[in-house]
Amino acid sequence: MCINSPNQHSDFQTLPNSIISRKQKSSIYYSFFVLMGSLTVAIPTSPTDKKKIIHGDDGYVLEDVPHLLDYIPKLSNYPNPLQSNPAYATTKQYFVNEDDSVAQKIVVHKNSPRSIHFRRAGPRQKVYFEPIDVNACIVTCGGLCPGINTVIRELVCGLHDMYGVPKIYGIQGGYKGFYSNNYNFLEPKNVNDIHKKGGTILGTSRGGQNTTKIVDNIQDRGINQVYIIGGDGTQKGASTIFEEIQRRRLKVSVVGIPKTIDNDIMVIDKSFGFDSAVEEALRAINAAHVEAESGENGIGVVKLMGRHSGFIAMYATLASRDVDCCLIPESPFYLEGKGGLFEFIEKRLKSNGHLVLVVAEGAGQDILSANLESAKDPSGNKLLLDVGIWLSQKINDYFANVRKMLITLKYIDPTYMVRAIPSNASDNVYCTLLAHSAIHGAMAGYTGFTVGPVNGRHSYIPFDRVTESRNKVVITDRMWARLLSSTNQPSFLEPENAKAGDIKIDVF
Amino acid sequence: MCINSPNQHSDFQTLPNSIISRKQKSSIYYSFFVLMGSLTVAIPTSPTDKKKIIHGDDGYVLEDVPHLLDYIPKLSNYPNPLQSNPAYATTKQYFVNEDDSVAQKIVVHKNSPRSIHFRRAGPRQKVYFEPIDVNACIVTCGGLCPGINTVIRELVCGLHDMYGVPKIYGIQGGYKGFYSNNYNFLEPKNVNDIHKKGGTILGTSRGGQNTTKIVDNIQDRGINQVYIIGGDGTQKGASTIFEEIQRRRLKVSVVGIPKTIDNDIMVIDKSFGFDSAVEEALRAINAAHVEAESGENGIGVVKLMGRHSGFIAMYATLASRDVDCCLIPESPFYLEGKGGLFEFIEKRLKSNGHLVLVVAEGAGQDILSANLESAKDPSGNKLLLDVGIWLSQKINDYFANVRKMLITLKYIDPTYMVRAIPSNASDNVYCTLLAHSAIHGAMAGYTGFTVGPVNGRHSYIPFDRVTESRNKVVITDRMWARLLSSTNQPSFLEPENAKAGDIKIDVF
Amino acid sequence: MCINSPNQHSDFQTLPNSIISRKQKSSIYYSFFVLMGSLTVAIPTSPTDKKKIIHGDDGYVLEDVPHLLDYIPKLSNYPNPLQSNPAYATTKQYFVNEDDSVAQKIVVHKNSPRSIHFRRAGPRQKVYFEPIDVNACIVTCGGLCPGINTVIRELVCGLHDMYGVPKIYGIQGGYKGFYSNNYNFLEPKNVNDIHKKGGTILGTSRGGQNTTKIVDNIQDRGINQVYIIGGDGTQKGASTIFEEIQRRRLKVSVVGIPKTIDNDIMVIDKSFGFDSAVEEALRAINAAHVEAESGENGIGVVKLMGRHSGFIAMYATLASRDVDCCLIPESPFYLEGKGGLFEFIEKRLKSNGHLVLVVAEGAGQDILSANLESAKDPSGNKLLLDVGIWLSQKINDYFANVRKMLITLKYIDPTYMVRAIPSNASDNVYCTLLAHSAIHGAMAGYTGFTVGPVNGRHSYIPFDRVTESRNKVVITDRMWARLLSSTNQPSFLEPENAKAGDIKIDVF
Amino acid sequence: MCINSPNQHSDFQTLPNSIISRKQKSSIYYSFFVLMGSLTVAIPTSPTDKKKIIHGDDGYVLEDVPHLLDYIPKLSNYPNPLQSNPAYATTKQYFVNEDDSVAQKIVVHKNSPRSIHFRRAGPRQKVYFEPIDVNACIVTCGGLCPGINTVIRELVCGLHDMYGVPKIYGIQGGYKGFYSNNYNFLEPKNVNDIHKKGGTILGTSRGGQNTTKIVDNIQDRGINQVYIIGGDGTQKGASTIFEEIQRRRLKVSVVGIPKTIDNDIMVIDKSFGFDSAVEEALRAINAAHVEAESGENGIGVVKLMGRHSGFIAMYATLASRDVDCCLIPESPFYLEGKGGLFEFIEKRLKSNGHLVLVVAEGAGQDILSANLESAKDPSGNKLLLDVGIWLSQKINDYFANVRKMLITLKYIDPTYMVRAIPSNASDNVYCTLLAHSAIHGAMAGYTGFTVGPVNGRHSYIPFDRVTESRNKVVITDRMWARLLSSTNQPSFLEPENAKAGDIKIDVF
Repeated sequence: MCINSPNQHSDFQTLPNSIISRKQKSSIYYSFFVLMGSLTVAIPTSPTDKKKIIHGDDGYVLEDVPHLLDYIPKLSNYPNPLQSNPAYATTKQYFVNEDDSVAQKIVVHKNSPRSIHFRRAGPRQKVYFEPIDVNACIVTCGGLCPGINTVIRELVCGLHDMYGVPKIYGIQGGYKGFYSNNYNFLEPKNVNDIHKKGGTILGTSRGGQNTTKIVDNIQDRGINQVYIIGGDGTQKGASTIFEEIQRRRLKVSVVGIPKTIDNDIMVIDKSFGFDSAVEEALRAINAAHVEAESGENGIGVVKLMGRHSGFIAMYATLASRDVDCCLIPESPFYLEGKGGLFEFIEKRLKSNGHLVLVVAEGAGQDILSANLESAKDPSGNKLLLDVGIWLSQKINDYFANVRKMLITLKYIDPTYMVRAIPSNASDNVYCTLLAHSAIHGAMAGYTGFTVGPVNGRHSYIPFDRVTESRNKVVITDRMWARLLSSTNQPSFLEPENAKAGDIKIDVF
Repeated sequence: MCINSPNQHSDFQTLPNSIISRKQKSSIYYSFFVLMGSLTVAIPTSPTDKKKIIHGDDGYVLEDVPHLLDYIPKLSNYPNPLQSNPAYATTKQYFVNEDDSVAQKIVVHKNSPRSIHFRRAGPRQKVYFEPIDVNACIVTCGGLCPGINTVIRELVCGLHDMYGVPKIYGIQGGYKGFYSNNYNFLEPKNVNDIHKKGGTILGTSRGGQNTTKIVDNIQDRGINQVYIIGGDGTQKGASTIFEEIQRRRLKVSVVGIPKTIDNDIMVIDKSFGFDSAVEEALRAINAAHVEAESGENGIGVVKLMGRHSGFIAMYATLASRDVDCCLIPESPFYLEGKGGLFEFIEKRLKSNGHLVLVVAEGAGQDILSANLESAKDPSGNKLLLDVGIWLSQKINDYFANVRKMLITLKYIDPTYMVRAIPSNASDNVYCTLLAHSAIHGAMAGYTGFTVGPVNGRHSYIPFDRVTESRNKVVITDRMWARLLSSTNQPSFLEPENAKAGDIKIDVF
Repeated sequence: MCINSPNQHSDFQTLPNSIISRKQKSSIYYSFFVLMGSLTVAIPTSPTDKKKIIHGDDGYVLEDVPHLLDYIPKLSNYPNPLQSNPAYATTKQYFVNEDDSVAQKIVVHKNSPRSIHFRRAGPRQKVYFEPIDVNACIVTCGGLCPGINTVIRELVCGLHDMYGVPKIYGIQGGYKGFYSNNYNFLEPKNVNDIHKKGGTILGTSRGGQNTTKIVDNIQDRGINQVYIIGGDGTQKGASTIFEEIQRRRLKVSVVGIPKTIDNDIMVIDKSFGFDSAVEEALRAINAAHVEAESGENGIGVVKLMGRHSGFIAMYATLASRDVDCCLIPESPFYLEGKGGLFEFIEKRLKSNGHLVLVVAEGAGQDILSANLESAKDPSGNKLLLDVGIWLSQKINDYFANVRKMLITLKYIDPTYMVRAIPSNASDNVYCTLLAHSAIHGAMAGYTGFTVGPVNGRHSYIPFDRVTESRNKVVITDRMWARLLSSTNQPSFLEPENAKAGDIKIDVF
Repeated sequence: MCINSPNQHSDFQTLPNSIISRKQKSSIYYSFFVLMGSLTVAIPTSPTDKKKIIHGDDGYVLEDVPHLLDYIPKLSNYPNPLQSNPAYATTKQYFVNEDDSVAQKIVVHKNSPRSIHFRRAGPRQKVYFEPIDVNACIVTCGGLCPGINTVIRELVCGLHDMYGVPKIYGIQGGYKGFYSNNYNFLEPKNVNDIHKKGGTILGTSRGGQNTTKIVDNIQDRGINQVYIIGGDGTQKGASTIFEEIQRRRLKVSVVGIPKTIDNDIMVIDKSFGFDSAVEEALRAINAAHVEAESGENGIGVVKLMGRHSGFIAMYATLASRDVDCCLIPESPFYLEGKGGLFEFIEKRLKSNGHLVLVVAEGAGQDILSANLESAKDPSGNKLLLDVGIWLSQKINDYFANVRKMLITLKYIDPTYMVRAIPSNASDNVYCTLLAHSAIHGAMAGYTGFTVGPVNGRHSYIPFDRVTESRNKVVITDRMWARLLSSTNQPSFLEPENAKAGDIKIDVF
């Protein structure tokens, strides 16, 4: 419709008391502030600028996301076609107010300052793409997680049904599919039932992230909306792709949809598929419990996902109530001596007759690696690094050789059975909102952002906020205390008689 | 430890900049002011006072809950026994800061005023009961909902394991059990596996709420913590019980745990069991879809719970994606004429060959009741009032008699199959937190409150806030728009050729 | 390869000691005898001949099925192409011996005579169709049942992969689809995943069985193998189609695959989908049990399928063990008086506090119909005929009005949720064998037969044997005694104070 | 009631043309035959006699089971108390005819001789125990299997409810529990819900079979009915216990209830829990399929139970239809060269893009053991022997090192998740019949037998018939051919370029 200059960008238009600060290149991010009223806005001026922070009264901070206008000053906008969608006719205030932001901190005191906020997700009055011109593509990277197909489905149906986007492509097999495979055409009818299946219909892979080749292909094929579903590494890749696109000043929105079965994405409440995964993990815990109860001094060991974050293990333990001990990467533990795992196991076997142990795959890596040097056979390393097998062997050895006590240990690794299920109902709804939020953001010209719920409200979050670190179980927090309280397991805080370094582990 | 006077109540002690204001309502709710800094605190002084509002800067409002100190000024407090629980040794900041409150409104603008907050749930440094003196009881009222047994289990285990409460009683068969049945002794070992079963081990009933007899029994038996699990009506009853207890100035904490499969409780994010119910409802929708796809002009009609609020129907529709039309109480509809349901059904049958219709039990009650006067046979009324049977009959009649078109309609009412399942994993965790929050609140001397998550944080909410009205689907809100967009069903806003009053419905 | 005259038909060729007898029935069924050894063979010579009985020593009787050679004497045969299938290279004795028959009666005494046998199903050395010439079609009729799609899938994949049949058509929407719809082309890739879905991808309907039009279409389109999946009525229709085809002396094999969720097909061990249905029915019983246990004098009533035969109700009751009373069509019952249902319910409520009642849809039709005359309102009849609703109302009325006793009754009708599920693993294997047996039979030139397991061995059974009557629960048999023993329900054999005719039922 | 001499044993009473042959001790089993009419009966006369064969006309053979009368000639019998059970009042012919036997071979020719039969299970008119005198005990041995708890439940409820047996004991923890643990008292109310749980409430163990100590304890405690639930080894143990009891001439019935998740018990149709296990195994196959479809050259490997018999793998493959290759112990395979597994995998990856491989745990043990000598590290052996891990490693190595081809292999071992589930509906019914058959047999004085369905009819089978060998998949039979046909996997019959001995396997 009209050509916007940067300060006509609708977000800023509605902020009469705002001023735009321009930031110097490279290292000094924000070159000058001008205080107008109580608001300070910092706008990045070059592709390498990463932060876009807006300050308000009382400590209000909006960590905003990039917009195509940031680097393509003259860009047409159009009325949102949703205005003519009969479904929206009834919905007052359907469009998100440009000023809407979502508070990250909501446990406050009477006199707390306001703090960080994120831009609220949702449809805007104006869009910066004409639907007919949109060439969208979707790619899925990394490991499986329940709900990927639901996100794909809702991206396709949302783009097509809500905005009338005719051309949507599926990139096959992860990032490398951008340059090594054909692009599949996706439309509602061929994704109609995919949410009932696990996995990803697009295929996935790890790595393959040749930014130049990817952006070349995006450019060559005229793609102008890129939806990238993937985890931590994938989002970093998306950030790099966004930067290259920004550098080339292409009118291409890059949207990240965070996927991690481990729930280790920062800022957002919970990653999609997490609930489904915890639900399925209970099946393995139930089996371990049955085996443990039926065997003589029965021990059931279940390894669950969680390389760096023990959320699945923690929630599955809390949900099951059959678990006697839960080991996660965030909480170090030791095996022998007073207060150690072996002592706890023996006590529990003597009082209860059986025991169920849940271990996240990243737990105890310090103890494992401490013993790796003595393991000469390199081909065995892979197996040693599986904490579930390692721990099962250690427990078996301890009770057989040290305690001379008969135990019956069963080890269950349900990882792929958990990852590969279709998403449950609540994840389906969640994935739908995620996909719609992503679409609304891209159509509104936002780019270089990740989408996700913050305190239950879908928001646009800058890439760096979700890639700079991992979400972890805070073991000094109350949720972990709840778990400790429910299992009565040791806190492993005072290894008196034993240290990890002292444990002698036979090569096996 | 020490004896508190009201203004020594720790909550107020720690608020040096507070001020107490008088509220101007009819019956003079707040009897005296104390000016403390900038904060206004209104303390109710008689049992009939209902609101306890604390104001802060920038529009901050805390809708606080009653405390035993409000009407029993001299009350001993004690260090929280959790301090000596090894599980909490590792947890810094385990205890909730007395000032912590949870914001209800979190989508804000840069210059938004702060608004309503609720007291954050969680353990306090001080408790007002010695565990050894606690006589707790648990009662469950109203219809079934997934997760009741999990709440019971966690109340019992939480009281017993966390605080060392030895005496916990189960009231049998709802409110009337207070005075007509024996109290069962509950302990962890006899509730250990109950979360794997649906229903309630305590039994339930509707009504039976003779406040005097209930409080007499509470008093006679020395019960001093009452945990009441139930819906809207039950919470109103709990409020009345609380008022009577307050009137008698008994040291008894009354805690409501909101249960409603319909998710129609105000303020809280979601009621427990809701996710499980939606998940199970999908089974019925899947069956309806299979039947519809296999039949000639197949129509599958599924009635889901929701007398006043269509949340289950709405979420199940969004989660399933196989539903063509979702009818809820909040959104009126009409059958005949342009833009009516019949027209839509016929169109969809012609384009797709089949159709799935989800109807909440309270939908269309206006149309049904409009036709009830002509239905003379009183014994038939019950059946007429079932919207699913009524609607199925109307559709069958219309296509058979008006359109002379063969259809194959299958009607499914999965209500009891949905209600009776055990809670899923995420509801199990939710129920655990609910129960723990309730316990912490009661131990800390709070009373007359309901517990539940507000924007994801468990909070204590005054009874009146959850009983004064029902949570409903806002059909001018975006979630309903999302549903309309996913189904492409009519909005039923412009009944041109037909009005509900005009529809001729044969008595049947 | 060669041209057979009737008595060169391989079946008979290999029976040197056989004799052909003439049967003495009205229309002279068997036209000529050949005495060979001790065996009597009756070969039908006209299309109206229906029985083909072969007698052997010691009372051996083979109830054989028709063969194309019976009415098309000169028919080429070919070596079975399976001979060159690498999968069969390893399998000695892969082909069924022409003499193989399956004994129907296997509980015998030392001196029992041999009795009825059926022709064993399986691949034959010779086939009477060249695969390239086969035009197969598949039709599904009647109500849904778990496993229909699996049968379709395996017919398509079996014909295509095992025999190399290129042309397989799906008839849409039941019998009427033969003449009112297009025929869909089916191939392995478009049926690959259908066994994971309930229902039938071909659609289904009841009736529509215009034999002349059906056979006209079969003839016009050059169809020469017709696979008909359906119940009792459908198999009768298949029999009529076979007779018409036989009359026209068409080289078309007609094969019936018996489908009935009620398990009411004679001769065969069990109908496909039955196990899956019973499994799913348990979900409803579990829900009813939870509701009953949680309510005050809780009664859960579950209606299960079974118009004429109570197998699902009986097996679900035996499998669940939570059922207090199971009512089936085969076992009459009465409500009032000594030994009646009401008395039993009251006793059980008093001893157990709750009760679960399973009622097959066809149970008690005598009592219902006895009361129908007084029910004047014709529009209400449909509802009255639903035994579940009727029985629930009667129980409610009795306890409310006669006994003045509060009960909480919940009624569950899971019919469509049970029918619409996909088949479970054992039904999948069963359906695979059924489909393969059907294909082998048709390719070998057999026609006018139904396929199914007899004592675990798949057999070819003449149409009339499965349509002449219905399989029913024999209430003087031990399986029903087992049920009675597990529920301790009354046998309803001595209605002393009440007779069905005496029961006064109010119109409602 | 009366005292029987051996030839008054009701079985023989009803066989007027029989004569009793007495067998010499030790090696000569049958001392003399007397031909009377056409029947020859061989009755064992000493505890070491093992076979009891009855011959009839036309090749009829009854492989009968021992009876207490065989070694305790004078034994009272009593009318079966079931005669006064109201549940049986309606059931004509409730009692099994003493002559009833079940044919093992039912696929016959017109002139086939009759062959082996087994005694039909079921209640007899006379019993040899007065219920009040019965001291029954139940023991469970070996690995878990769905349905053990159902069998326990039905033994307890059947003995108690049907026969009025008051004293039933549970032996804890397998055979060794006979002499090392207390005996738990079992009654209907404490086993009421156990069929809804997996595992065994009695606990289980392997070995511990000190026959003398076991029989001493049986004798000392006055146990006179011993129900032994277990697999091959357990049944051998039961046989030894029976022999010792027989040697001591104790009036104790020993009944074996065959349990094996592998379905490798001879004679019987199918072992309990098998259907449930196959059903659950499909979950793992589905996951493997999803993973394979989503990965680049995705391979899903699922290891299923089956040390010696591949039934679970075969049936799960047939039921799933997503499996590309199924490897079982009965069918040798090789990896490299023409016609080998690697070649097949590569072909399938190239045509389909992914592949699912199911391997029974006992498959390929010949290849594994051929490579074990070079694996010097003894601690690694356990892992090497897991065919799933070994095969996955070999495939990974081959494609990485030999073919330089990227594959994505996921290995799933669902063993314990499959074993530990509760039994499904059809297994519940099966287990009920098994338990009842066992009870009827013991009450009727039979001993030293195993119970199970033969061609669908429950029968009593001599121990030696089920322990002398294992049931295996016959790879020259049609079921295996069906599998080969469904997967199109190689038959591995012609290893041209490679032999197992030639494969070089690195130690890992």
